[in-house]
Amino acid sequence: MNPDFIHTYVSVDCVVFGFDAENRLNILLAQKHADNVSVDSQKKLPGSLIFSNEDVDDAASRVLYELTGIKKMIQKQFKCFADPNRASNQNDINWMGNEYNQNIDRIITVAYLSLCKIDHKINSSKYDTVDWHPIDNIPELPFDHNKIINESLIEIRKWMETDFSIIFVLLPKKFTIRQLYQLYSAVSEKIIDIKNFHKKISSFNYIIQLDEIEQNVSHRAARFYRFDPKIYKKTHTKLIK
Amino acid sequence: MNPDFIHTYVSVDCVVFGFDAENRLNILLAQKHADNVSVDSQKKLPGSLIFSNEDVDDAASRVLYELTGIKKMIQKQFKCFADPNRASNQNDINWMGNEYNQNIDRIITVAYLSLCKIDHKINSSKYDTVDWHPIDNIPELPFDHNKIINESLIEIRKWMETDFSIIFVLLPKKFTIRQLYQLYSAVSEKIIDIKNFHKKISSFNYIIQLDEIEQNVSHRAARFYRFDPKIYKKTHTKLIK
Repeated sequence: MNPDFIHTYVSVDCVVFGFDAENRLNILLAQKHADNVSVDSQKKLPGSLIFSNEDVDDAASRVLYELTGIKKMIQKQFKCFADPNRASNQNDINWMGNEYNQNIDRIITVAYLSLCKIDHKINSSKYDTVDWHPIDNIPELPFDHNKIINESLIEIRKWMETDFSIIFVLLPKKFTIRQLYQLYSAVSEKIIDIKNFHKKISSFNYIIQLDEIEQNVSHRAARFYRFDPKIYKKTHTKLIK
Repeated sequence: MNPDFIHTYVSVDCVVFGFDAENRLNILLAQKHADNVSVDSQKKLPGSLIFSNEDVDDAASRVLYELTGIKKMIQKQFKCFADPNRASNQNDINWMGNEYNQNIDRIITVAYLSLCKIDHKINSSKYDTVDWHPIDNIPELPFDHNKIINESLIEIRKWMETDFSIIFVLLPKKFTIRQLYQLYSAVSEKIIDIKNFHKKISSFNYIIQLDEIEQNVSHRAARFYRFDPKIYKKTHTKLIK
């Protein structure tokens, strides 16, 4: 065998997005509280090596379930990260030795996007702590997890451009147009004209107006809407129809 | 080490699209003519194991260069294929043994899309034969290469919807609106109203009309156009501006 060919472990890592009441994108970071604090207590993206009889998509589903207790979360594979130096930091090598009981010096990971309503109950079977972190305030993470998160932001934008319906996975079931606008702006990361936004949204027949308005708010109460996935499927916007 | 975790080889495979004069999408298949005909002469997607000091994107660039002799082809990673049984066919195991001199029974691959003008000269340093094959007439291929090709068709559609400019990589530098329509239809795989298409295209200021028409054609000579990437970058269509 040509010794120059890679022979390695393969993992999955999951970036789970949520949208908070302060109009910020958040992601889930996970933590175990091991006795050996210096090695294992760091926050990281939830992930796992894949099993020898497992496909990567199934490994990602397993990680998401072990992370949240939620079955069948929406997931999208977005990129394989394979920089030869992505696991060469000594702390990361120590962590892998502790977690997997063997010296590992290179590991390839397949990264996934997932989406979760931020008020959904998180019930992890694997981690001691699972917390939401605003995307503009992520601590320094092991491996290339900060890079993976940065690239996931570009991917969630693309995903929303090709399938606008994913935005509704992040919103409450009943939402105001302002909430939709804030979330769209947070994902787009650019200034969007609110008049154009309203005009465009009102042309989307899959956003259904409800007979219900906000209660107990200091500003003028806004109307609630809901998303209709069946109508969306029939009509969703293409470049050229 | 938990013996249940995968420890494996990782490869890249490349699906290179072209668009022929009969308005069909084609892809490149590669072939080596080994002495041991039964093992090595089958057509397959161009690919390679990645080296131990190589990132996956670099491995894909290397494969594309060894395949075509063209430097810096456009490439897009689209999916990691990791079905535990994707390399379990005995012929495929034999081929891997012949190619890499070792028994390999599982291999994960990262698949890439690439695009090439179909009249570009192909000058392979690795393969004996590299040929274009119409997408609706692909032979039975080893591993899960037929599945990878099927999924690549979905991916090229998505790619075109998020970045319409990639369509011009497949067209000649000077093209008619009919050619653009035929290519768009071939990628979309659905019936598009030609009047709507013309109307939409005429609103794209990055498609520049030339002072030149077709020569020596039996039908009414059509005007040529060119694509302007600088104007495209400034203005390209978003869902909501």
